[in-house]
Amino acid sequence: MLSSASDPDRFTDAYPARITALTRERKAGTKIVGTFCLYVPDEIIYAAGADRMILCGGSNALIPAADEFLPRSLCPLIRSSFGSIITRDDPQTAACPHVALIDLVIGETTCDGKKKMFELLADLVPTHMIDLPQKPDTPGALLYFTSELQKFRRVMEELTGNQVTDEALWREIRNANRTRRLLMRLFTLRQQNPPPIGGVAVIRMMQRQFQLHPTEFRRRLETLVTRLEALQGTNQERTVKRPRILFSGCPVTAGNQKVPEIVEERGGVIVVEESCTGTRAFWHLVDENEERDPLVALAERYLQIPCACMTPNDRRIEHILDLVRQYSVDGVVYATLQNCQGYNTERHRVQQALKEVGVPMLAIETDYGDADKEQIGVRVEAFLEMIQ
Amino acid sequence: MLSSASDPDRFTDAYPARITALTRERKAGTKIVGTFCLYVPDEIIYAAGADRMILCGGSNALIPAADEFLPRSLCPLIRSSFGSIITRDDPQTAACPHVALIDLVIGETTCDGKKKMFELLADLVPTHMIDLPQKPDTPGALLYFTSELQKFRRVMEELTGNQVTDEALWREIRNANRTRRLLMRLFTLRQQNPPPIGGVAVIRMMQRQFQLHPTEFRRRLETLVTRLEALQGTNQERTVKRPRILFSGCPVTAGNQKVPEIVEERGGVIVVEESCTGTRAFWHLVDENEERDPLVALAERYLQIPCACMTPNDRRIEHILDLVRQYSVDGVVYATLQNCQGYNTERHRVQQALKEVGVPMLAIETDYGDADKEQIGVRVEAFLEMIQ
Ligand code: SF4
Ligand code: SF4
Ligand code: SF4
Ligand code: SF4
Repeated sequence: MLSSASDPDRFTDAYPARITALTRERKAGTKIVGTFCLYVPDEIIYAAGADRMILCGGSNALIPAADEFLPRSLCPLIRSSFGSIITRDDPQTAACPHVALIDLVIGETTCDGKKKMFELLADLVPTHMIDLPQKPDTPGALLYFTSELQKFRRVMEELTGNQVTDEALWREIRNANRTRRLLMRLFTLRQQNPPPIGGVAVIRMMQRQFQLHPTEFRRRLETLVTRLEALQGTNQERTVKRPRILFSGCPVTAGNQKVPEIVEERGGVIVVEESCTGTRAFWHLVDENEERDPLVALAERYLQIPCACMTPNDRRIEHILDLVRQYSVDGVVYATLQNCQGYNTERHRVQQALKEVGVPMLAIETDYGDADKEQIGVRVEAFLEMIQ
Repeated sequence: MLSSASDPDRFTDAYPARITALTRERKAGTKIVGTFCLYVPDEIIYAAGADRMILCGGSNALIPAADEFLPRSLCPLIRSSFGSIITRDDPQTAACPHVALIDLVIGETTCDGKKKMFELLADLVPTHMIDLPQKPDTPGALLYFTSELQKFRRVMEELTGNQVTDEALWREIRNANRTRRLLMRLFTLRQQNPPPIGGVAVIRMMQRQFQLHPTEFRRRLETLVTRLEALQGTNQERTVKRPRILFSGCPVTAGNQKVPEIVEERGGVIVVEESCTGTRAFWHLVDENEERDPLVALAERYLQIPCACMTPNDRRIEHILDLVRQYSVDGVVYATLQNCQGYNTERHRVQQALKEVGVPMLAIETDYGDADKEQIGVRVEAFLEMIQ
């Protein structure tokens, strides 16, 4: 099995080169867009000839800088993200050189804390907000979200001076679907026992999707998938049976892979992630029927993402139950960030659904600090023993 | 000045009679709807021949019952509200007899915690959700919200078996506007120095608006306003100058008037409340032009409510600045509930706006317990001394 440490395709060397490329691109006139959420369709950004970085913060060190502006009762992801922006011009703390390169932030109305954080951000960086309907199945939601995407398209046209043609949108839709299909192939390989790649390695790779140019990401992903497919059936580790874990919950942003690391250090193997750094990022394809309005096709696809900001979110629960079956899951680790009201409240319904099918679940609520590492380790170990 | 203790119109005798009336109504076939938010248009409920109660909980005692289901990182209002429903059939704790009378809950996608709480509630009581756009000024928002109100109208028709005619809607719109105009008259009287009625008394009255039948509420309100208008100019208290406070923030639900009480006990006088138990409840009228679609007129009015769930919420800040001028405010008490991410995050921008006009602000974040009463008292007293 490829672990994160030994994997030559683990993408971690990519960041510095990416910063150099972005700096050069930007000097040449390309606009750089910063986003914070899977609900913002990348296809529209790339179709406008812009580039993008996802700015979700995973660093604990950036939180204190945000505390002057934001209440502490927001989740660490929001506080860290805001911290990375407020400190972007400070050479002492500028841990995220990409933040200073952003021309426009595209925010969305997903969770309360993020929605309100964008208002403060707008004083620092030009920001455009997309309103996301919260009840994806209500009749008017698709129309409303499509109209928000139309507006987003115009905003991108104004920013770049380029026209966002239907042709360019379809090209980017096909490209993004190609990446999604590759990710699906990668994930399907993990249904094997043992899986050919560990969860921490996959999470680190998914984190890179937030930063790399999509062509570069796809190129590396393709190499990895091809290699793993070639390995099929040759795996030597069959003797060791490690509990197969579905990791579910809040996004695991770069810098914050504490919980998945503990799970794999203590003897589990994460076989699938129901997360924004997991299946939520690629599970649904955009319909490629070019007779349609590409924005409607995009709106349709993005509204299917089962984030806890949606209500009701039964499709997330069904998705989790499907994954449990498809990936022969022994137990679920439900990992949330402190003060994430959506995923923490949804925990109750997920727990109930898993109980009904007899799959054990361990709930872990944590922050970006290290103080609870040992305590989490003990709980994870007890859980792994129980399900073995 | 009328204080809450001496006011014969203080409405507090109304609750038992209301329960008796609701019980009788319900036996006779009237449907009772429970709501949790100002964004749900009462007019549609009454036009269907149903009655309604607002179910927002203010009691600390009801929180423990909710803790089994909800994370503690939700605001006490949500936890208490859920607690009142989960305990509704338990004679030991049934503090809220009205809850057992509810036929249908109408929820809304406002804040995260409430939105997700409704999903658990739906297992206990029939629940219909209204999706509220979060960016009220975006072009499609009015259309989308109108379509959600159309759906709500159909839901009410199915519940009651009555047709919700345009005529009935216009009748209810005119009635509700009448109440709004009376409230505006009452609030305008408070621009006097000293005001003819204290803030705690007004808040207690506004809390009753959540429970009384609107006709009964209007009748009592009219008596009060007429009497206070007759008193104009006769006030004897002119010698004592008490700091004039704008109270702003989260709703002050019945059972939870701790902060306003402390403000007035320690020597301040609340002259206006920017709150859902204050101006947010009545500030905007529905357009009475009957040539329009009444649902569009309703959607237009309700989208103007400046709740922190909206983004950006500049109209709330402008409204606060207007009130500061109109009500000769000496200082603002910004009172929020713990873990209310919307109002706590919006605090920063409100504070900045007030600083620019030189109006001091005291921020208080609290829960439904009594433990911090003395500490709040000390801070309020220091604040009142400072602004005197
Ligand atoms: S968890 Fe939800 S709000 Fe957060 S990035 Fe994912 S889709 Fe967006
Ligand atoms: S983890 Fe939760 S609270 Fe934090 S940004 Fe994501 S959805 Fe919002
Ligand atoms: S504060 Fe906002 S969400 Fe809460 S009752 Fe008022 S309008 Fe509704
Ligand atoms: S006080 Fe805040 S968190 Fe609580 S229900 Fe109202 S808006 Fe939501």
